[in-house]
Amino acid sequence: MTSVITPAEFRKKIASGEFNAPTAGYCDGFVQANMLVLPGEYAGHFEEFARANAAPVPVLETVRGGYRTSVLADGANLLNELPSYDIFENGERVARVADMEKYYTEDMVFFLIGCSFSFEARMVQEGIPLRHMARKINVAMYDTSLPLTPVDIFHGNMVVSMRPIRRDLVAKACVVTSHFPRTHGMPVQVGYPEMIGIKDIARPDYGDPVEIKADEIPVFWACGVTPQNVLRNIKIPFAITHSPGYMFVSDRRDSEYYE
Amino acid sequence: MTSVITPAEFRKKIASGEFNAPTAGYCDGFVQANMLVLPGEYAGHFEEFARANAAPVPVLETVRGGYRTSVLADGANLLNELPSYDIFENGERVARVADMEKYYTEDMVFFLIGCSFSFEARMVQEGIPLRHMARKINVAMYDTSLPLTPVDIFHGNMVVSMRPIRRDLVAKACVVTSHFPRTHGMPVQVGYPEMIGIKDIARPDYGDPVEIKADEIPVFWACGVTPQNVLRNIKIPFAITHSPGYMFVSDRRDSEYYE
Repeated sequence: MTSVITPAEFRKKIASGEFNAPTAGYCDGFVQANMLVLPGEYAGHFEEFARANAAPVPVLETVRGGYRTSVLADGANLLNELPSYDIFENGERVARVADMEKYYTEDMVFFLIGCSFSFEARMVQEGIPLRHMARKINVAMYDTSLPLTPVDIFHGNMVVSMRPIRRDLVAKACVVTSHFPRTHGMPVQVGYPEMIGIKDIARPDYGDPVEIKADEIPVFWACGVTPQNVLRNIKIPFAITHSPGYMFVSDRRDSEYYE
Repeated sequence: MTSVITPAEFRKKIASGEFNAPTAGYCDGFVQANMLVLPGEYAGHFEEFARANAAPVPVLETVRGGYRTSVLADGANLLNELPSYDIFENGERVARVADMEKYYTEDMVFFLIGCSFSFEARMVQEGIPLRHMARKINVAMYDTSLPLTPVDIFHGNMVVSMRPIRRDLVAKACVVTSHFPRTHGMPVQVGYPEMIGIKDIARPDYGDPVEIKADEIPVFWACGVTPQNVLRNIKIPFAITHSPGYMFVSDRRDSEYYE
């Protein structure tokens, strides 16, 4: 890998099996997206559910009647241009595969969903240090008591990511991230985990724990793990997602999602 | 006064002496501005000082070589269309007058400076309650240890206003106010008065004390009292300001300053 590789070249290496690892740190400055694939019968209600819960479930592109993107990249093949896929049956992961070609059926609908990677780069640029990035660990994520707006079978509570923010930078962190409304936007809570049902900040439900120093407070953002979590909880018969961390790397720049 | 009076009609009543009271609550939705009038010899450095400290000193219009506005209103007379003026000599207020005609000299420069009234209306619209407005008291203001960027003789520390914000609305308060960069913008501090040199939150240096409830935290914004305070501290021989609360009511809508 060189630092000048384009997202299209990177996706080619993924499709050929040459690259098979988490995508964080590759193609910096380009939007990476979560993916959910649903059988057609669930897609309409999920779309409505996403619209009603746009902060945790920001759909950037929907692909139906095929498997090629047109918004996030020109004709990327969603069946093999992600490095790893998780196959779910009745809410349980039954396989992890390098391509999903043999699972594809024409009625499937692909949802590409925004991810906070997009605003993290901007936060760091604006002088807001992010410990999980500096330490190269996963962001800490928590189940909350914040209810999602239910639509048909889709329901549940929001998952949030937490970043310790220096006390003098809290307002700036809120404002910078608010400019990315399509990749989770501004925080859902500042400083008070107990108000959103988080009992032990030292034990995240997903990702890695991270130290909160004396001059910092925990700040919480809606998290793209939310829809995956909903899918697992409602146990629909069949669904496919990217494997956590193995994202779809798009041709769109983060800055295009800055509003 | 009727509720449909225009700012131009309101200013006429002021000029004729028919209205002579604080302007808060009149011509809702229109920008109200602080005013500073300086002898020409100080104006250049003050202008530079304001640019270097745009959060506490956001100049919306500068008028020189005359006393009529062109940006905030079409030809308003700054000598008598504010309800009350304070005359300063060597940093001391020596008179409070209803018009400043007899003090006017052609070399004077008028600075009209943004005020947080503009974002407060929007905060309330967005569902963020503001106790000082509900109780019809003045906002609480404090001297801080936050140094201003000095230019020539102009120097000092920032004055801030404080509003208690419900813990679940803190991020929103930061974001809403950030959209008004020309009327102080986002908070300078969230939740930790001691970090900006405020020792006793219950005793504001200006304005009225306000209760902070258990589910709220104090949030601090740069305040338009800053330049007046600087003027008093550096004791220049002569200056004029509006009397606190007796603002210039402009023809510009608050929404024109939402970016």
